[in-house]
Amino acid sequence: MNRARLQQLRALLPGFKADALLVSAIPNIRYLTGFTGSSALLLVTREEAVLFTDGRYKLQAGQEVEHAAVVLAKGPLVRALIGSVKRRRLRRLAFESGKVSFAFHAALRANLPGFRLAPLGGVVEMLRAIKSPEEVAAIRRAVELNSAVFEASLGEIRPGVTEVEAAIQIDHRMRLMGADKPAFDTIVAAGPRAALPHARPTRNRLGKNDLVIIDQGVILGGYSSDMTRTVGLGPLGEPKRRVYRAVLEAQLAAIANVRAGVKASHVDRQARLVLKQHGLDKAFDHSTGHGVGLEVHEPPRLGRNEKTKLEAGMVITIEPGAYLEDLGGVRIEDMVLVTDRGCEVLTPTPKDLRVL
Amino acid sequence: MNRARLQQLRALLPGFKADALLVSAIPNIRYLTGFTGSSALLLVTREEAVLFTDGRYKLQAGQEVEHAAVVLAKGPLVRALIGSVKRRRLRRLAFESGKVSFAFHAALRANLPGFRLAPLGGVVEMLRAIKSPEEVAAIRRAVELNSAVFEASLGEIRPGVTEVEAAIQIDHRMRLMGADKPAFDTIVAAGPRAALPHARPTRNRLGKNDLVIIDQGVILGGYSSDMTRTVGLGPLGEPKRRVYRAVLEAQLAAIANVRAGVKASHVDRQARLVLKQHGLDKAFDHSTGHGVGLEVHEPPRLGRNEKTKLEAGMVITIEPGAYLEDLGGVRIEDMVLVTDRGCEVLTPTPKDLRVL
Repeated sequence: MNRARLQQLRALLPGFKADALLVSAIPNIRYLTGFTGSSALLLVTREEAVLFTDGRYKLQAGQEVEHAAVVLAKGPLVRALIGSVKRRRLRRLAFESGKVSFAFHAALRANLPGFRLAPLGGVVEMLRAIKSPEEVAAIRRAVELNSAVFEASLGEIRPGVTEVEAAIQIDHRMRLMGADKPAFDTIVAAGPRAALPHARPTRNRLGKNDLVIIDQGVILGGYSSDMTRTVGLGPLGEPKRRVYRAVLEAQLAAIANVRAGVKASHVDRQARLVLKQHGLDKAFDHSTGHGVGLEVHEPPRLGRNEKTKLEAGMVITIEPGAYLEDLGGVRIEDMVLVTDRGCEVLTPTPKDLRVL
Repeated sequence: MNRARLQQLRALLPGFKADALLVSAIPNIRYLTGFTGSSALLLVTREEAVLFTDGRYKLQAGQEVEHAAVVLAKGPLVRALIGSVKRRRLRRLAFESGKVSFAFHAALRANLPGFRLAPLGGVVEMLRAIKSPEEVAAIRRAVELNSAVFEASLGEIRPGVTEVEAAIQIDHRMRLMGADKPAFDTIVAAGPRAALPHARPTRNRLGKNDLVIIDQGVILGGYSSDMTRTVGLGPLGEPKRRVYRAVLEAQLAAIANVRAGVKASHVDRQARLVLKQHGLDKAFDHSTGHGVGLEVHEPPRLGRNEKTKLEAGMVITIEPGAYLEDLGGVRIEDMVLVTDRGCEVLTPTPKDLRVL
């Protein structure tokens, strides 16, 4: 698997006029080699791949890394890398321009005089965006575990419980049920707090009549999941139900438009059009979705101006919302797998409004 | 408080030949403005400070930020920043060279023709290394909570429990007892796994006669704590007890040498000298400690070649260890506050060998 990925990357090198690509983003290194440590650099040349890490990871690198040589650096990884680049006479080195610091590049520049250093953006991320069947299976497991945790946690979503208490229980259950860990800080946001799309749980108590946004994801086997549901604490008046229906309609419209070949911005627009019909377009101020895989946020992004075309094998979220200071907020988020003819919704959790 | 910090930073600008410093590391922005959001840039000129964030953080920025103007950018933050720099006619802009990507710098470069962009390393980190009395108080609370969680969790450290199960219970208790969250992935490593200084908890079960390393920290009020204790599961033979005594002796020797004015490498060396007397110097392959504050790992570093001089008000860990494939591992870690005459050990948890 890693061998095929490395070959895919190598096939791109001539187009970049590069003898080698220096990979520095940790999820990219994991993708290409299987290495799960948190400190590493990877050099991919036309013939070989060399992973640089330190002695702490000796055993782990030996167990995990296939199809790449492992160098255990004594000092800074960049020093070991520079030596390796010189010995191999790699004159044209491409690097991940969004993932290395200015200072890191400056160190390369100073120590590799006469070498061509070519900035490259998001090449491995582009490969990662299309999931293999094995990756889809891993993502499916993460999605299903996340939904099971959600169902098992609904009993704690009741008036009087604080947002923090509810979030803590969800996070604990994730791990008890087998997750590596939460994919991000779980959001439980009730009442007026639900009107903040980026709310963090507070000591505020869930109240009757509240809309409660629950946004949670697990990491399982390295792959992330991400789901949002909005539940009501009864009795829930018609204005809140109306907003819920509008967001659900927008979410379904966006999903109905997902298909290989369609622009990301097109899917985003479908959600906005529906919300506009309900007078809620100004209440939706984030993008409609994002890719999910080894990272919980990865390309593609589904926003207003995203010209990226969806491709079969991409796994993305569809998550429109509406946030209103007086009523609170609603967001509904599924993960879907893009196919040639449309998409498969991976998230099994029902989306009819639940009033607890 | 933030006002004084901004003034401290401004006083350094002339020395850097800069009209302004662009701060991009999130903990640095928090330190200087109080803003706890996860997306921001901060421009500090000789007269003013301007925080750039996006609309999601409107309310939060309004509540948290003092002594800085807040700009809610519609598009990319860097675009808003560039406009602001141009309007203010700041010709010489210093930036954090280790914290901005190559691509970010390239965007500044392309959009600010004729401007001087000066790379700077770790300036705000240098200010952050010396803690104010309020910060020491906050760190003390985080340390004490962490120790209370440790004591309350010892009941779960027993033969038959897996490392993962023990770590999950510790993490859950942290949050039940009031922590914001764990400061890092809690380590529980038993038997042969304890011989890996960077072990992650596995499904392996704790066994009789095992040494068990527990490395845990909480974040409370934004400040981190970090503590390691090694406990024994009885009965524990003399060879393991001997290693424990040697590591404790090394840790106490290092602590006894902490004092304002002393080089970080000197403290590191004291731990190594003691371990060498016990024939264990090769079994200790990481550095002796690091600063702790808004980040769990921050300057100074206490390693072999660190020439940094300790200063009163620094808060650092002292954490020598010994890792042996046959016996397992021992690490003992406290947090200490550097003072003019020595140091105060902040961690209240006893260090005599506990056999459970």
